[in-house]
This record gives sequence, C-alpha cells and structure tokens, in this order.
Amino acid sequence: MTLQIGIVGATGYTGSELVRLLHFHPHARIAAITSESHRGKHFSDIHPQFSGIVEQILIPVAELSAVDLDAVFLALPHGVSMDFAARFLDAGLPVIDFSGDFRLNGPDVYRDWYQKEHTYAAGFERAVYGLPELHRSAIAKADLIANPGCYPTSAILALMPLVRERLIRTDSIVIDSKSGVTGAGVKAKPVTHFSNVSDNFKAYGLKTHRHTIEIEEQLSAQGKEQLQVQFTPHLLPLDRGILTTAYLLPSPGTSPAQLEDAFQEAYRDEPFIRLRNDPPSLKDVRGSNYCDIYTTYDARTGRLIVISVIDNLVKGAAGQAMQNMNLRFGLEETAGFVQLPLHP
Amino acid sequence: MTLQIGIVGATGYTGSELVRLLHFHPHARIAAITSESHRGKHFSDIHPQFSGIVEQILIPVAELSAVDLDAVFLALPHGVSMDFAARFLDAGLPVIDFSGDFRLNGPDVYRDWYQKEHTYAAGFERAVYGLPELHRSAIAKADLIANPGCYPTSAILALMPLVRERLIRTDSIVIDSKSGVTGAGVKAKPVTHFSNVSDNFKAYGLKTHRHTIEIEEQLSAQGKEQLQVQFTPHLLPLDRGILTTAYLLPSPGTSPAQLEDAFQEAYRDEPFIRLRNDPPSLKDVRGSNYCDIYTTYDARTGRLIVISVIDNLVKGAAGQAMQNMNLRFGLEETAGFVQLPLHP
Amino acid sequence: MTLQIGIVGATGYTGSELVRLLHFHPHARIAAITSESHRGKHFSDIHPQFSGIVEQILIPVAELSAVDLDAVFLALPHGVSMDFAARFLDAGLPVIDFSGDFRLNGPDVYRDWYQKEHTYAAGFERAVYGLPELHRSAIAKADLIANPGCYPTSAILALMPLVRERLIRTDSIVIDSKSGVTGAGVKAKPVTHFSNVSDNFKAYGLKTHRHTIEIEEQLSAQGKEQLQVQFTPHLLPLDRGILTTAYLLPSPGTSPAQLEDAFQEAYRDEPFIRLRNDPPSLKDVRGSNYCDIYTTYDARTGRLIVISVIDNLVKGAAGQAMQNMNLRFGLEETAGFVQLPLHP
Amino acid sequence: MTLQIGIVGATGYTGSELVRLLHFHPHARIAAITSESHRGKHFSDIHPQFSGIVEQILIPVAELSAVDLDAVFLALPHGVSMDFAARFLDAGLPVIDFSGDFRLNGPDVYRDWYQKEHTYAAGFERAVYGLPELHRSAIAKADLIANPGCYPTSAILALMPLVRERLIRTDSIVIDSKSGVTGAGVKAKPVTHFSNVSDNFKAYGLKTHRHTIEIEEQLSAQGKEQLQVQFTPHLLPLDRGILTTAYLLPSPGTSPAQLEDAFQEAYRDEPFIRLRNDPPSLKDVRGSNYCDIYTTYDARTGRLIVISVIDNLVKGAAGQAMQNMNLRFGLEETAGFVQLPLHP
Repeated sequence: MTLQIGIVGATGYTGSELVRLLHFHPHARIAAITSESHRGKHFSDIHPQFSGIVEQILIPVAELSAVDLDAVFLALPHGVSMDFAARFLDAGLPVIDFSGDFRLNGPDVYRDWYQKEHTYAAGFERAVYGLPELHRSAIAKADLIANPGCYPTSAILALMPLVRERLIRTDSIVIDSKSGVTGAGVKAKPVTHFSNVSDNFKAYGLKTHRHTIEIEEQLSAQGKEQLQVQFTPHLLPLDRGILTTAYLLPSPGTSPAQLEDAFQEAYRDEPFIRLRNDPPSLKDVRGSNYCDIYTTYDARTGRLIVISVIDNLVKGAAGQAMQNMNLRFGLEETAGFVQLPLHP
Repeated sequence: MTLQIGIVGATGYTGSELVRLLHFHPHARIAAITSESHRGKHFSDIHPQFSGIVEQILIPVAELSAVDLDAVFLALPHGVSMDFAARFLDAGLPVIDFSGDFRLNGPDVYRDWYQKEHTYAAGFERAVYGLPELHRSAIAKADLIANPGCYPTSAILALMPLVRERLIRTDSIVIDSKSGVTGAGVKAKPVTHFSNVSDNFKAYGLKTHRHTIEIEEQLSAQGKEQLQVQFTPHLLPLDRGILTTAYLLPSPGTSPAQLEDAFQEAYRDEPFIRLRNDPPSLKDVRGSNYCDIYTTYDARTGRLIVISVIDNLVKGAAGQAMQNMNLRFGLEETAGFVQLPLHP
Repeated sequence: MTLQIGIVGATGYTGSELVRLLHFHPHARIAAITSESHRGKHFSDIHPQFSGIVEQILIPVAELSAVDLDAVFLALPHGVSMDFAARFLDAGLPVIDFSGDFRLNGPDVYRDWYQKEHTYAAGFERAVYGLPELHRSAIAKADLIANPGCYPTSAILALMPLVRERLIRTDSIVIDSKSGVTGAGVKAKPVTHFSNVSDNFKAYGLKTHRHTIEIEEQLSAQGKEQLQVQFTPHLLPLDRGILTTAYLLPSPGTSPAQLEDAFQEAYRDEPFIRLRNDPPSLKDVRGSNYCDIYTTYDARTGRLIVISVIDNLVKGAAGQAMQNMNLRFGLEETAGFVQLPLHP
Repeated sequence: MTLQIGIVGATGYTGSELVRLLHFHPHARIAAITSESHRGKHFSDIHPQFSGIVEQILIPVAELSAVDLDAVFLALPHGVSMDFAARFLDAGLPVIDFSGDFRLNGPDVYRDWYQKEHTYAAGFERAVYGLPELHRSAIAKADLIANPGCYPTSAILALMPLVRERLIRTDSIVIDSKSGVTGAGVKAKPVTHFSNVSDNFKAYGLKTHRHTIEIEEQLSAQGKEQLQVQFTPHLLPLDRGILTTAYLLPSPGTSPAQLEDAFQEAYRDEPFIRLRNDPPSLKDVRGSNYCDIYTTYDARTGRLIVISVIDNLVKGAAGQAMQNMNLRFGLEETAGFVQLPLHP
C-alpha cells in the first residue's frame, strides 16, 4: 500500500519538516504540495536543503482536487485551516490539521482564547485531538485529526500519568516551558530577528498563551475533573526543542513510588516516549519524534518535578502528524521514522 | 582618595570582569593581581581583550603582603577562599569574597550543603552578606563581605519585597532559573564543552543546588519566619545572564495592588534595580549592574509571577562586589559604573 | 566645553550604539534624538536596555531646527542621508554621516555601485572619508564626515600600511571577510531571521558588494596607483564583529621584515589599533573601538596573511563616528571611550 | 547480505555519528563497539540521544577478536590508529580508518607534518585515500581505506575538476575555510570551551595545519603536477559544517564556460554532490552526506571563486566512511543514507 499524500502549505517549517519525514516513508508518497505565493516554483527553490531530493512543482491549492489523494495535511496558520478542513472533509478526504482550529472543545472556548469566530463549528464534533498516547484508538477512526500544539504536547505528556491517576493536587500545577524559535514560524518579524533572540532569553505570553486552555482541557478530560495550570512560555536562543519543567504537589496520601509507577504504567509500551534516569537535554531528541521524560520527588519540599523534552517540529508537529497518519491508516505506528536524534 | 586594590585570582571570569569594571573607577586603582599558575605573565596574556590596556604582571599571592593595599577581592573557588580570607583579615585588610565560603549562617549549614568542613568558622561572625538592597548599612561597616551567589542575587531581589511584607505563602515558592554558561567558570569541562551547550538546554542540580540554602536563609531572615524554596537551575546556550521566573501564592487577604506596591516601596530609590512594565530579556542588562524586575498577577489562577534578569558576572558577581566596595569605603554607590547594557 | 549633539535616526543599531557611547562622554550631550515612526515615545521604549538611563522623548527631524546643536549624526540608510546632509550643512551644522552616501569619489561611481542617482553631488567635494588612521588632519577641518563602512574599516586598516609603502602586488589582493548579523540592520527580514542565521554560515554579495569600491578607492589613493580587490563577505551566526582575512603577494624584492615594519610604522601611535602577536578573535574587541591586527608571512608559499578584527557597530560605525567627532572638535581623540571589550 | 561491523572508539563524535548512520543501513549491523574508558557501560550511557535505541554494551578492543566481523572502522586519533590498523589488517579484516595516519604519501611526509614517527610504514602501500569522487574504483578493492580529513574533503571537492583539467594556475590557490567546533573533537579543552567559541570567531593553524599537505598531495596527483595551496582554517560558533571559499586564477586561455563545464563534467553523476546556482549555506547539508558546490567567475578581477559546504561529521567523516564501506562491499553507493539535511 502506498498512501497518496497532499500537503497544503509548503513554505513554513512544519510543512518542510513533514516533507523531510515522509520522504523515506515506505508506505506514503507526497503526491502534491501546495503554495499560493510560490506556485510554479520547485519545492527546493523555497527550501534549498532539498535540492536534488524533492524537486516537485508547487501547485495552488485549487488544483489539489485534480490529484488522487488518500489524505491531506494542513500546514496552515489557525484561522486559515478551518475553511480548508471543511472543504476537504466534504470531499471525503481525511484531514490532519497542524493549526489550533480544532484542538479545543468547541467554538465558544475557541472564540475566547483565539479572539476569532469559528467558521466550521461542526468540525469540533468530528475532530480528534491527535496525541496518540492519549487518543490512539480514536485517532485510528478519525477523519479530522487536530494535531496538538507543541507546548501542549510537551506539557500533557509530562502530566498525563499523574492527572489520570489523580495523584496530584489540581490547583498546584506550574508549567514553566522553554522553546526554540522555530515555534514562532518561518516569517521574519521582530520577535524572530536574530539579534533579538541570539544570546538572549525572555518570557512571553504570560497568563494568556493559547496553549494554556489546550493543556487544561486535555488534562481535565484525563483526570475527569476540572483543573487549571499556570503556563509560562520562554524563548530560547536556538532553533528546535521545547523543555518543560513542571512543578506539582502530590495529592494527600500519595507516595513517591506511586508517582513513579504512574509513568512506568502509562508509557511502558509507548514507542516514542523514553523515561530517563537523568535530566534530559534538548539535543537528546533533536530531529526525532521522541519525548524524553524525567521525574524526581523532592522529599524536602514535598514537591514533584517533571521534565520533558521534545523537538517542537517533530513530536511537536510534523512527526506527531506522521504518527497520526500511521495510526489512521492502520500502518505500524513507527513506520517511516528513520530520524535519530542529531547530537551534536 | 584612591583605593589601592588587590585582586586574588586573575584567571577566572569574575576576576577579569572585576578588572573591566574597576579600570575606569575614579577612586580605585588595581595595585596588584595574583595568579599562581600564570605568575610572571602579563594579565593580558591570559585575557587578550586587555592587550594594551591592562598589562600588569601577575604576582603570586605570597607577594601581596609587600603591596600597600586598602582592600582585597578574592576571586577564588569556595573551599579555597576561607583560608585567604582569614589571612587578610588578620593582616587588617578588608576582604570582599566572591566564593560561597561566608554566605551562609554558620559552619554547620555550610558542611551540610558544601560537603566540606569549614576552616575559619569565626569568619561567619564577621561576614556580612553583600547584597546592598538588603544589607546596605551593615556592608558599610563590614570587614568581610560575602559577595552573593549569582542565582541568589536574581532570586532574592525578585522575592524580598514580598517576603519582607509577608505577602506570600512561604510554602508556595517555586524558583525556576535559567543561567548562561559563564556561571560554570572558565575551566574547560564537559558541562561547558561547546557542543554540549550550544543549541541545547537542560536542567541540573535539581533539589540539591547550594544556592537553595543561600536563598532560603536570606529570605527567611527578611520575612522573620522560616521558608522553603523549590529552586531549579537550567543551563542556557549563551554566555551571560540569569533569568529567574518565580511562582508564588499571595497570602490570604493580600490584594494585587499590595503586591505591586511592595516592589515600588522596596526599590524606588535603588540605583541598580529597574521595575519594568514588560517582561525583560537578558540583553537588557548584559554587561551592566542592573537587575530588571517584572511582576504580574494572574487573576485566573490566583498566582503571582515575578521575573528578574541580571548579568551573572556583573550584578551576580563583580559588579555587586564593586558596589559593595563603594559602600564600604563611603564612595558614591554608583561610582565607576560606566558600563551600559550591551544590546545587541 | 559641552557639545550639543543631535542624532537623526534612533531606531537602528548604529543609532542606539551611538547613544551608548556618547552617554558617558565628558564633553558631549545628546540634545535631541529623532524618529519619525516613533515620535513622542521615549528612546527607552524602543531600546529597553536604556530604561531609566536614556528617557529622552523622540522628536521628528523637522523639530530639530529648534534645538541648539553643535553637530548632527545621521544614522540613516544610504539614499536617505544625502538630503538631510545637504539640509544640515546649509544650516551651518557639521554632519557625521553613517551611510554610504558620501564615501565614494563622486556621483558617477556612486551611481554605478549604488544603482541610484545622487541628489547632492556637491557634497562629495566637502566630504572627508572619516577613517582617522588615514585622514586625521582632514577630518579635523571637515564639515561633512563620511563615516566609513564596517567592512571597509576592517579591510582598509588591514592593508593600508602595505599599500602605502607599495609592498604588495596590487593585483593579488584577496579579502575574505566574515561579519556578524547587526551589519544587516535592525529590520526583520529573511536574511536576519534567527533560524536562517543561527548554526548557519554562508557567503553573499560575491563580486558586487558596494564596499568593494569603497575599499578600492581608499587604498588606491593611499598607494597612489589603481588597485583592485577581490572582496567576499560572509554572514556569521553572531551579533557583532567583523574578521577579515586578507591574502597578499609581496612586491618583488620585499622582505618579510619590511612587511612587518610597515605595520609598526603606521600604527605605533594609534590609540585604537593593537598589533597582536597571535590571531585575534572577535570577542577581543567586542563592544570596544579597537581594531586588532595580526600579520604573518608564509615562507613556504611566499604569501602574506593579514587578519583584522573590529566590532562593526563600534569601530565599524558609532565608535568611529565618536572618534571623528572628537577630532573635529579638537577634543582628545580617545575622549569618552570607556567601553572595554566584553569577553566573554 | 548483512555486514558485521566493528567500531573501535565509541566516545568521540565521529564514532557516535557512524552509529547514527549505520543504524538504519539495510545491509550492515553494528556487531560491536569498543571503548577502553567506558567498557561495560551501555553505548547510550555515553551518548544519551541513543537511549532505548542503541543499548549495546561497550567492550574493550581486546575482545573484538572474539566477534565475527566483516570490517572495522577506526574512530581513533592519529598516532593511535596506526597500530590498530596493522593488527586488524594482519587478521585479515578490512579497515576504514578515520585518522590521518594513512592519508599521506608516505612515512617521511607524515613525520614532517605530524611530528611523529610512523610505526606502520607498510600501511601506506596498502592504503587508498577514501574520497569516492576521486578514487572510487580503488576503494572498491582496498583493504585499508584512509578516510579523508574534513577540511580536505571540502577543499579537494571544490578544486578537483579544475585541477584535473589544468584550468587554474597552480600557484594561485587560496583556500579560506570555516569549520564548526565538532571538528575539534569531543574532549573538553580551552579551544572548545563554550565561552571561547560562542559569539566568537577566529583563524587558527595558519600556514601549518596538517590538512594543507593532504590537500596538496591529492590535488597534485589529480593535476599530475606539483601544486601548493594557501590553507587557512577558522573556527565558527556552531557545531557542524565546513564552508570553504576558494580563490583561483584561471590558466591563460581558459574561458569561464570551461571552468563551469569542468564541474558539470566531473560531478554530473555523483550521488552526493550538488552543483548549486546560489551560494550554499551550512544548514543546506547539515546532518547529510551532501557536498554542495557553487562557482562564480568575476570578470572584473579575472578570478574564479568556488564555495563548498559539507557536514564535517558526515561527508567529512562518518558518512564518507559509510559511503566507502558501500563501495568496498559492492553495495549500492547510497545504501543506508536516509539522513536528509536538517534545516532549520
């Protein structure tokens, strides 16, 4: 079997990363890549690292209907994705959406956090949150897969085993995350200007970052009780990677061993989660689909610390999307993943 | 008046930074710089940025007694400083010590956290913790000034106004700090190897970092009640700077306005503290003695977030030491500080 | 004496760097800073590193005529500067221009290399090329000082002693330069987008970079014969600094000692040039006005290699401008230079 | 067919990079990895990015004889490799050596440039210089493959087509190379200390770098006449990659078209060489086995400029070694190369 894949949105980092990952997939073929602004050019004109490797001509999305496809990936900004998702679903095509348009519980909460009216409210009914470690079986049957945000992937995977087993106090969750710059996209703007980032470090989006609600909704569902998180993102002077440091208070009566067991239990058989005995670093996972997790209980303070690392463009975006594709089409979940971490 | 200054330990970053700062001080003169391993060489042989600027010959510390001095700075590792401090104090020379040897409350707690027996326990009686914003008047009379650690400087300044006014719950303090590499010193070792740091990020010293107790002791004294902090340092891929993100729960009955007022009250007249309206970045203070602080209350979660940034080699080491020297010798506290932040 | 200084163009890196340098100048005061896009804001709103330090209100350039000034610095792009230069010169104000508008020999060569018609051709008659090591006495009398380009500063200083003494073959000059990103300006664009620069390196502007002609004209004048250079710039993943590696063939009959002597002769008394015995690195001069130069003759190949390093924002722009100001107004040439290299 | 592979020297960057590349090779299996200092540990204890992926136990090299092998890679420093090469060759095992021990023409030139007596002079007779683009057919029959140096790979590939066709003046070759830090190895030392490299840049090894003679010997053999090169390496503040800028004068009577044709001719069918129309950047090849080459003739100066980029750990070391292995064992030359460039 060879899946015929369409990628909508070729200029961004998640789009080019998806091409990198799919290129050696034994059961998928990139049938078409779209771009409005670069239509007619070669993909490698925009991303010269693919010179001689991926020379496909970029087509406008309107011409995609003429291509015989099995699935479509939308590597588009939020607010733009929703219309395309509706269109492709209507055409009977499974959609894996990289944007935030279908990750939340519904149009109202979407409006509150994205300051935007949703144009395809019905999509929320069909959408499955594409975090395989939480929703594997639903993903396998979904026609609209809402690929998770990068920060939420790192935070939810760090907390899910604890929340699901109700081992932590739901009012105690502090999530201090640090991300590389590619999370801000390919577009040049002051926040991504080299000299504003290099040798520099700062917090941003305090209290109001949209990924806050994504984390809260997913974890609340896992714990079957409403919880709140204090989420603070920071911008690291590097390209790829998110490290999340989470601070938590165990529920009364919970033992340190129970905390650790929860992670073993939850992730023992997960192909892309590695429980580590030492604090992991970003380069341990760079370029790969792994999420490395470290936990430690501080007997002095009674607090649990959980650290997770991912590559925001892989497990935090394109890799997770390919994992979802594998699940959706009944392939081996690890099919095509030949990217080992690049270190150094 | 011109103070005659001796600097013990010329090869490290804090030593060379002190030379950079003192060079244009209108009332201080570097009379001697010592080094055992590089004795006889020019200072600029070790630090070529000083070529043609500081060409002094390095002398062994044993020859320092022949130099007419007003004060001595010890830019030495902990465990080494204590003996020299005793010696110079006996000789009647005021000492400003960069190490951790005299920052804690006494030899017992020192042994617990530094895994080392202290050889000059009497020094603790004479030592004043050299954070001007907390101990200005005591510093002015001290003969042994224990220059604070870099992380503690960033953390204590971020929390002092709140703790002093008892505005926060003392069991709620989470301090997530991120530091540049120079904090690890000038010596080449795996943790400072370029390819282990560049493009990388990780946490270290969880639960046991020595700066934890330094922060706790100072803040407990300010609040006049025992408190505990959860302190986690991380290593940033850059040279200079510490950003601390602190998460706190206000005490029952405390209003957001009270939290903010406490900072205005405490720091209104401080020459090196700048209260900022937006989250500061490391480059805003790089190369300078400023500590920039930002606070924000999250009404949704009921938590207060405080962010501080310093240059670890300046306000976190050599700059603070020069500020202490100014205080100790009755000079204007800002004398000699002609280093504006280098950005970009 | 206190010079009243106006700075036109506050948002760019050279403008803010000039403010950093002038701030502690004993005989100059920044009387006004202009910005059209940010008029009415505080200077520190644009450059937060100056919070609490430089809080001046930015005024539109039209209001500058109401300010009593002794000199004006134009921190503007080429093509924009020329009109302002004309206007201020007409008003009797000495002008130090950061742009390329008056560096070349005349309007024709300007048109050829800048693809633009010059609107103030008469300015070329009045302009002096502001490289003190070449034109000190002329600068002292000039009303229009064309502050040199950053690459030309590094290249001309590396070659001038050889060219002036006609010690090298004028058809042999290869100049391979590597620059930090700030040379490309403060504006966010793809070439300065973090992920295009970080961990990356490339050549650009081969054969056609405008600084080529600037180098050739200045060196030809020094050598009193027409010469050509092969100039290739490269983009380094760092903020500040230019390192130039120049490859040269000595003229027939020239001895290695003569080559070295030429540098000693030319630069012995220069306050900002340091002849080094080992290859210098960028951090040796970062943040300072120094140009460090290293030369070595390869007896095996018969070639001379000269390496120079500068900080492109200081000796390559704002520092050189302040040096020119000092010369122009009869101040000590080093007045106000309290910025030692920042390393690390 | 599955080749059983032994890797001697597991702690360095080239060793771990080889493991990354071989891991997905369809016809090779890593049968044993040796380390003296880490014997008994898991490979992933030293290189945590391989956690859960490569968990082999490291054995001392002495135990390698008990393993059934088809070939051995020596990822050892020069001076150490020579003895092991002799030993394995004697045992009838093909050897691919990463060091400089067998790259030169013989023991005399080795002594001159490596300041060391060679202990296995007979090895030079058996060794083939492992640059497939030059010696493909010899490599296929060699038992001792001297894997090229990283700088020489970038320089020789940039110049070979010109030299082979005698299109350039052999006394005109200037090679200005810039390399990432991993070329200096995994060991912590001052030259690789983070704060000495980050934000910094410098030249080193002028006139005497050992790769000079390696480049000269190979190119002289290609051109069938003795030539000399001026080779200057520089250290970039990044992990991976070498960019070489070469400056050349065409031979009398050579047309620009001939220069370009030579590259087309030489590399048209090369699987890992990409001729580019724009100057390439390091990230275009990072993590991959590609060498991208750009050439441009400057009609104004009469000079040819050639730029090449490689990843020093892949095409400059482990990737080239795997390519050599494929050639030696009659596999498809591109077998196992599933690593696309990582950008960003």
